[in-house]
Amino acid sequence: MMEKLNDLLERLRKFKRDRDWEKYHNPKDVAISVVIEASELLEIFQWIEPSELPTVVEERMDRIKDEIADVFLYLLSLCDALNLDILKISFEKLEKNEKKYPVERFKGTRRKYNEFPLEDG
Amino acid sequence: MMEKLNDLLERLRKFKRDRDWEKYHNPKDVAISVVIEASELLEIFQWIEPSELPTVVEERMDRIKDEIADVFLYLLSLCDALNLDILKISFEKLEKNEKKYPVERFKGTRRKYNEFPLEDG
Amino acid sequence: MMEKLNDLLERLRKFKRDRDWEKYHNPKDVAISVVIEASELLEIFQWIEPSELPTVVEERMDRIKDEIADVFLYLLSLCDALNLDILKISFEKLEKNEKKYPVERFKGTRRKYNEFPLEDG
Amino acid sequence: MMEKLNDLLERLRKFKRDRDWEKYHNPKDVAISVVIEASELLEIFQWIEPSELPTVVEERMDRIKDEIADVFLYLLSLCDALNLDILKISFEKLEKNEKKYPVERFKGTRRKYNEFPLEDG
Repeated sequence: MMEKLNDLLERLRKFKRDRDWEKYHNPKDVAISVVIEASELLEIFQWIEPSELPTVVEERMDRIKDEIADVFLYLLSLCDALNLDILKISFEKLEKNEKKYPVERFKGTRRKYNEFPLEDG
Repeated sequence: MMEKLNDLLERLRKFKRDRDWEKYHNPKDVAISVVIEASELLEIFQWIEPSELPTVVEERMDRIKDEIADVFLYLLSLCDALNLDILKISFEKLEKNEKKYPVERFKGTRRKYNEFPLEDG
Repeated sequence: MMEKLNDLLERLRKFKRDRDWEKYHNPKDVAISVVIEASELLEIFQWIEPSELPTVVEERMDRIKDEIADVFLYLLSLCDALNLDILKISFEKLEKNEKKYPVERFKGTRRKYNEFPLEDG
Repeated sequence: MMEKLNDLLERLRKFKRDRDWEKYHNPKDVAISVVIEASELLEIFQWIEPSELPTVVEERMDRIKDEIADVFLYLLSLCDALNLDILKISFEKLEKNEKKYPVERFKGTRRKYNEFPLEDG
């Protein structure tokens, strides 16, 4: 991974500053954009059956890359507007998840904590 | 930014490997999860008026951090499953955006390329 | 309201039957489509400030109609696949909401049940 | 279908009027709520494989009903705020779809108009 997250953030800031777009980037409107881009990412897989996924992934790789990047760039914008370090909050959340889903209980099951009886978990 | 993206990715991989959850992480289902988490992020700002945003951001900062992190962790999982470098594809997309929204035309306007007559852009 | 919901449902069934599309309409994939169309509806209002809403609504009314209809047609499809009467379940949910948000407590406040201290509610 | 759409609409209006909630129901914020509820509907099917769907549908039918109803009630609210007849716009959209996806070309294929080469459609 040659490029660095900080360089990307700087370039994203410049992109918005050059266009005078920072003023639009309040957290609610950026969160809306995260959802819209995430939904465009999902649309790539709309109606696709599990067996078709490998072919679809290959055929639509350019769109997939673009949509993942769009979601990420808005997430970074949101973190920037809120003065959050995306890596720091993600480490913290992953640590929470490690505790919330103890290995011995969740190994091999996707069932959510508290959602189901866990006898079969 | 002390923590590194590669370290986060390694820890995320271990988290999934330990629980035997990699098998569930096909691109379609992960994209669904990206949308669900993005929507939970947006829910924090549901019904909030612009003037209320600063207070809401302060009061709900812990939820905001968690939901941003959830979206990011699923994005990283998706990139990992597809063998994509999230920084590389984001640099490439930002470069596309720089060309798609030339400064002289889009400075100060949010109007989308091709969506509107640009006389006023 | 001259047209009837049952007529719409019949025509929607015929639309799918004629194209042999019923086989794709499992609940998960239809729910995905509901989200995608809902997000396209939201996209119409992306970056729009409250003061701009009346103009935007007027200018984009055709898109708004189409996207609302898309969400509704998928909801109807989902109900049909699950043998649910959309009016019946909506009356039942509205009745739940009437109890969950008692007038005396929620009049004029959007704050959700259980989410906030309600001293100020 | 004993209950009528107009009765539901009247009761929904009363629900909002009694709580003085109409003032919050601008199109952008209602569209946000449509997305959030649609995403909660999708969450019911998160990580569920095709073979698991029948059991999941049965076990979670109450949640499914509630979430479909939530999406629909917000859609109705949006139509009401915009003075739209949801049946009328849905008939019109279905008619568009009938033309956009001619039977002879789309029978048995989900591929979207304009998205793919249609040689195999």
